[in-house]
Amino acid sequence: MSHAVSPLAPKHIPDMPEIAGVRIATGAAGIKYKERTDVLLALFDKDTAVAGVLTRSKCPSAPVEWCRAKLKGGKARALVVNSGNANAFTGKTGREAAAFTAKLASRAAGCKAAEVFLASTGVIGEPLPAQRFDGVIQGLADKAAPGRFVEAARAIMTTDTFPKVATAQAQIDGVTVTISGIAKGAGMIAPDMATMLSFVFTDAPIAASALQTILSETVVDTFNAVTIDGDTSTSDTLLAFATGAARGRKITRAVDPKLKAFRAAFTRVLANLSEQVARDGEGARKLVEVIVEGAVSKKSARRVALSIANSPLVKTAIAGEDANWGRVVMAVGKAGEPADRDKLSIWFGDTRVAHKGARDAAYEEAKVSAYMKSPEITLRVGLALGKGRDRVLTCDLTKEYVAINGDYRS
Amino acid sequence: MSHAVSPLAPKHIPDMPEIAGVRIATGAAGIKYKERTDVLLALFDKDTAVAGVLTRSKCPSAPVEWCRAKLKGGKARALVVNSGNANAFTGKTGREAAAFTAKLASRAAGCKAAEVFLASTGVIGEPLPAQRFDGVIQGLADKAAPGRFVEAARAIMTTDTFPKVATAQAQIDGVTVTISGIAKGAGMIAPDMATMLSFVFTDAPIAASALQTILSETVVDTFNAVTIDGDTSTSDTLLAFATGAARGRKITRAVDPKLKAFRAAFTRVLANLSEQVARDGEGARKLVEVIVEGAVSKKSARRVALSIANSPLVKTAIAGEDANWGRVVMAVGKAGEPADRDKLSIWFGDTRVAHKGARDAAYEEAKVSAYMKSPEITLRVGLALGKGRDRVLTCDLTKEYVAINGDYRS
Repeated sequence: MSHAVSPLAPKHIPDMPEIAGVRIATGAAGIKYKERTDVLLALFDKDTAVAGVLTRSKCPSAPVEWCRAKLKGGKARALVVNSGNANAFTGKTGREAAAFTAKLASRAAGCKAAEVFLASTGVIGEPLPAQRFDGVIQGLADKAAPGRFVEAARAIMTTDTFPKVATAQAQIDGVTVTISGIAKGAGMIAPDMATMLSFVFTDAPIAASALQTILSETVVDTFNAVTIDGDTSTSDTLLAFATGAARGRKITRAVDPKLKAFRAAFTRVLANLSEQVARDGEGARKLVEVIVEGAVSKKSARRVALSIANSPLVKTAIAGEDANWGRVVMAVGKAGEPADRDKLSIWFGDTRVAHKGARDAAYEEAKVSAYMKSPEITLRVGLALGKGRDRVLTCDLTKEYVAINGDYRS
Repeated sequence: MSHAVSPLAPKHIPDMPEIAGVRIATGAAGIKYKERTDVLLALFDKDTAVAGVLTRSKCPSAPVEWCRAKLKGGKARALVVNSGNANAFTGKTGREAAAFTAKLASRAAGCKAAEVFLASTGVIGEPLPAQRFDGVIQGLADKAAPGRFVEAARAIMTTDTFPKVATAQAQIDGVTVTISGIAKGAGMIAPDMATMLSFVFTDAPIAASALQTILSETVVDTFNAVTIDGDTSTSDTLLAFATGAARGRKITRAVDPKLKAFRAAFTRVLANLSEQVARDGEGARKLVEVIVEGAVSKKSARRVALSIANSPLVKTAIAGEDANWGRVVMAVGKAGEPADRDKLSIWFGDTRVAHKGARDAAYEEAKVSAYMKSPEITLRVGLALGKGRDRVLTCDLTKEYVAINGDYRS
């Protein structure tokens, strides 16, 4: 399938600086289609630290299980990502295929299999023909080179309509470090499900445990604050690799004040990548920011925001450029969180459309209608109960979403 | 808006026998449109017991709040239902409009306002012009007559594509009693949300407290086991009225063994009506039954079933006639309930497509593809963990759903 580039795509692809200690190559292993780029190999210098956040699905893919086990070691020398087959719901053969892939990569990288990380996206329930990686991975290792992040981002695209990359720099103790990341989003591999994969690389000298803490904290308001349709892949994978190639003493504590600027830059990269995922949501025509304020807690605000962001009635209304705040009331009401109808206020953009449990008598329908035509919509809800605030990103629900996900066989 | 009748509509509208003690009339009050039938009045003889189940929304409509308060009295003499305006998110004026409507009906029925029950469906956030009921309700009371359930069902239709009625009979202590119900489903009143309303009438002699127990128990596997899009209206209302006009001593305990046949018949009526709601889901082309077996409890099975039934990816796949069991795995995995991937089995109709955590090698794709073309699809998941079982009904997610809910302003 090919789709026109999302109208919400960033206008420019940034220059992506090299990360010392990271080399990349992409190639075609013929996993599902012949001669299509379907495998990415990244090699890391010795002492590269790794951290990861993996799907919470109770039915995770074999590569997710592999990564979960190997993350305990905290060290990475190679990453293998393939499209065309998710190696999910494949039982014992799936575990064997993952182990075989890791073995090939460990030989090529000259490391232990436990230092190889894996991710797969594509069809579910089909055995992954991992033997097709034999020879291919060694060939990729031979030609791997620094940079190439955009090429890597393209290699993991499925029905993503644009490659997703982001980069930022920060100083740690006077030394400039770079963070570069790639992601694929909620694109389909017919005939299967959306999967979010993201890989972030840095030359900062950070121990695995500190990197894990930073990653786990950062993901809360970035990747975990993005929803396309409320569905959760068996394969969602976010890995961060720190080669430590930049000068400086290795930092072992996430709370080390020297990391302040790094953490801010790391957050910018993840926020940028996760926003791009929302911008490339299947069939998306509008990027939707949902802000909930005045909740009893941040957690409660998150739940209300997700109830709004995942509501098909809210999302179809936005697709229809309809400032249908009645549906927002509905979504607040069904969230199961503390809410007092008679204190509720709702804004579309800067316009307050509802106040203290009733329509805002002052609001101008024409102004709101004009606002709803913009490609980026901010929908804000005030609960007036406490200080809890949160923000999630989503996109509208269009006929194209249904077409992309329902039309394979028609 | 007018829509073609759902292809899933029942082939015949049943004969709806009168219920002694119930009189009905419908009329036009001009709430939103001139000369459109938009108000239903039902009058009940003295000593009619009432029970109800109302939306769990934290932002309920004024009529829902009215009913919740008045249900404590357990007695009903009148029911007023209007379309065109939901009287939701209308603050103090909404409460006043509800009280005024009840006052008009209490005068017409010669009863207390607390014996009047109310339901409204339609636009949210607009004041309900209840003064338009003045005179109209008295006129309806004057012409109210037995029977007329199909007329009543039509009067509360919004974008429902067919009137929803069901009836059943049972014996209590040798006396035949009748149960007749009407419902409106997930139809839109542009430009607002879907609302489910249902009213069930019986001549059985049952005390309000017993009726409430029976209703609350029955709703679990009927109306609460139906989902169209996971959204919850501010106005969902299900009320049951028992006139006691049939001979026999009033039964005061829900567990009275004399009620066994009555309870079965009552369940049949509610199951029938709620299934019709699923059959008339917005844009529905397929009725989907989701069965989950082998869960650790019924509650856990319900959650897994709802995770599947509310998954946009599952629902669009069914719309596309695609037996995409990978998405079912995904929905099981994201439900947050105990599940063991390697014990999971999945059936579409009679065909087991996945078994013990992998594709069922024996299944014939052609047979399943043919099955997916049927208008009624049963999707069964075996978790193989315990004895918990549950069943929910839903419908597919089609482009028509998006069109109905997003296209008003285009």
